[in-house]
Amino acid sequence: MMLGTHILGSGSVLPGRLVPTSEVCAKAYPHRTPQQLEERTGIASRWWAHPGTTRAEVSAQALDKALAQAKLPAGKLERIIYVDSTGGDRRLPATSNAVAEALGLEGSCDCIDLNNACVGFLSAMDWAARCTATGLGPVAVVTTELWSHVIDPSERRTYAVFGDASVATIFGPARGNSGVVASWLRNDGRLQGSVSCRHAGSTCVPEFVRFQVSGSQIGEEATDAIVRSMHEVLDRAAITFDEVRWVLPHQPNGRMLTTILERIGLDPSRTLPLVREVGSVGAASVPLALDRLIERGDLNAGDLVLLSAVGAGIGFGSILYRAGE
Amino acid sequence: MMLGTHILGSGSVLPGRLVPTSEVCAKAYPHRTPQQLEERTGIASRWWAHPGTTRAEVSAQALDKALAQAKLPAGKLERIIYVDSTGGDRRLPATSNAVAEALGLEGSCDCIDLNNACVGFLSAMDWAARCTATGLGPVAVVTTELWSHVIDPSERRTYAVFGDASVATIFGPARGNSGVVASWLRNDGRLQGSVSCRHAGSTCVPEFVRFQVSGSQIGEEATDAIVRSMHEVLDRAAITFDEVRWVLPHQPNGRMLTTILERIGLDPSRTLPLVREVGSVGAASVPLALDRLIERGDLNAGDLVLLSAVGAGIGFGSILYRAGE
Repeated sequence: MMLGTHILGSGSVLPGRLVPTSEVCAKAYPHRTPQQLEERTGIASRWWAHPGTTRAEVSAQALDKALAQAKLPAGKLERIIYVDSTGGDRRLPATSNAVAEALGLEGSCDCIDLNNACVGFLSAMDWAARCTATGLGPVAVVTTELWSHVIDPSERRTYAVFGDASVATIFGPARGNSGVVASWLRNDGRLQGSVSCRHAGSTCVPEFVRFQVSGSQIGEEATDAIVRSMHEVLDRAAITFDEVRWVLPHQPNGRMLTTILERIGLDPSRTLPLVREVGSVGAASVPLALDRLIERGDLNAGDLVLLSAVGAGIGFGSILYRAGE
Repeated sequence: MMLGTHILGSGSVLPGRLVPTSEVCAKAYPHRTPQQLEERTGIASRWWAHPGTTRAEVSAQALDKALAQAKLPAGKLERIIYVDSTGGDRRLPATSNAVAEALGLEGSCDCIDLNNACVGFLSAMDWAARCTATGLGPVAVVTTELWSHVIDPSERRTYAVFGDASVATIFGPARGNSGVVASWLRNDGRLQGSVSCRHAGSTCVPEFVRFQVSGSQIGEEATDAIVRSMHEVLDRAAITFDEVRWVLPHQPNGRMLTTILERIGLDPSRTLPLVREVGSVGAASVPLALDRLIERGDLNAGDLVLLSAVGAGIGFGSILYRAGE
C-alpha cells in the first residue's frame, strides 16, 4: 500500500572537530601509514563531537535547521522520533524528551526513542509515513550518532571508521502522489554478533563498539543483505533500477559502497558518496545523503529515491520514496 | 482518524521468583515493618527474574504464549516491536533481534527496539495500529521490564516498588469496527528529571534507577498528566466515561491507582488492579492488565477500553480501543 508522505524539511549537523585519518592512524595503527589506512577504509576524515556534547543538544540543532527549512514552528510537530544505535544519552528517560525540551517544547507532541542499529532511520521513516498516511503529522525523525563516545583505540577496527553526525528529517502529508511507494524491511538475529556494544552498568568495565568477526565476513553478509533488499523492494513496487533517480545506500566504509554500486551496476553519479568525508555514521548515513541531495537542490518532484540500509542485528531493508513538489 | 486493528492474542510472563515485601523491607527499610511499607506502597509482592535472565529470553516466552493464543505461527509476524524503559539487554544491536532469534525466526520480519519509559507500550500500539490500518501485519508488541537488573537497596525508593514482567500483544487487521478510536499522546521534557537511570559506560560506576524528587511531587504531576490525557482522548472521540467498559491506567503504586480512580470517579470493578501483586512493572503495567482481562474472558466484542499511561520523560497519554470479535 502506498503511504502518502512528503519531506517538508531536512537539516544536519557534523558536531565537534574534523579528525583526519592520520590522527586515528597514529593512535590505533601506528605500524601503518595514514595513506594505507585511508585506502583500506575509504575514509579520509570524520567529525567527532567534543567529549561533553550530548546527543540531545546536537539533535536539537539539526532539528532546528530542518524546521527552518520547512518554515515550520516547532510547536506544530505532532511527534518526534529520536533514532540512534547505542541507546541515547541515558537509559531512562528516553533521550527524545531532552530533544523536545531543548527545542522549548512544553508538551505539544509526543516523542520516542527508536533503535534498529544502522537501519533505524528506515524504521522511523516507516512509522512517520504511516503517521502522515493516517492523519498524524508533521512528524520529525532525528537520527543522531555520537560514535566518538563509544569507541576507543583499544578497539581499533571500530575506532578507525566511526564518525559522528545528526540529521533531522520532517515528514508531512503527501503532495500529489509523493510518498513511500514500497518498503521491504527485515532483521535476522542469527547474525547479531557481528557488531556489538554491551551495557557497562553492572560490569563496571567501559564498553566500546566492537566488530566480532572479520571485516570481510561482515562486508559480504552486509552487501548480500542490502542488495537483496533493493531487489525485493523494487520487485514489490514493479519498478526497475533504471526508473530510480537516486540510490542512497548505507555507507559503512568506502569499499562496501563501491562493492554495492558494482553489484547493482549503478553509475556513481546516481548516488551521493559521503563516507570518505564523514566516516561511518551509522543510522545517520542514509538521511545525511538525502539531506545533501535536498541541500544541492537535486531532489525534484516525482524523483524516485531508493533508500537502503544494513546494520547490526542484522537489520536490512529498503524504502522506495517518490518525492513531492 | 480511526485506526483499524484487532488484538489477535496476548501472553505474559512473570519471571523468576515471587519476592514478598517483607524481604525488600528488611534490606531497604530495616527501621520499618513490612506492613508499614506495604501500606505505603500498596505493593505486597513482585516477581524478580534470576540474575542471569535476559530480557530477550523472557520476551520470547511471552511472545510464544501470545502466538499460541492467536493460533499464529511466528513466521507469519511481519514486525516485532520490543519495548522497555532501560534500553534492553545491550546497547547494540537492538535487543529485538535476540527475541526474533529465540523464536527461531530467520529474517521473515523486521524488529525494532522502542523506549518511551512507562508510555512505551502505548507508543508501540500506536505504531502497530498504524501498520495494520495501512496493510502491514500481524505486528507483535513485546513489552519487557526487568527492573530487578537496575535496582539496588542503595536506591531504596525504587528498590521498594519495582517488579519484573513481560507481555506480548499481537495486533492484526480490524474485525468489524474494532481498532484505535482515538489516541492522545504527549511528552513534556521539562519534568524529565523525576525518574532516571544513567548509562554507566564511561563512568564505571553501577547506575540504578532513582527517583529525583519527592514521591508526592512525582505522584501529583503524574496523576494530573494521566487524568488530563483520559479527558483529552475521550473529548477527541466524543465518548464519555460511562460509555467506556474498561479503564486500564498505569499502576506505579497502589496509592496512585487509588488516586486516579477517585479523580475520575470510577468504580474499581471497571479496572483491573494488579500492582499489589506484581509491583511497579513500568511499561508492562497497561498491557499486563489487558492480558489479564483477555485471559479472564472479560474483553468482549464492541467493548471500549481506555488505556492510559504516564512515565519518566515525562510521557503521558491515552488510547481508546474498541475490541473486535
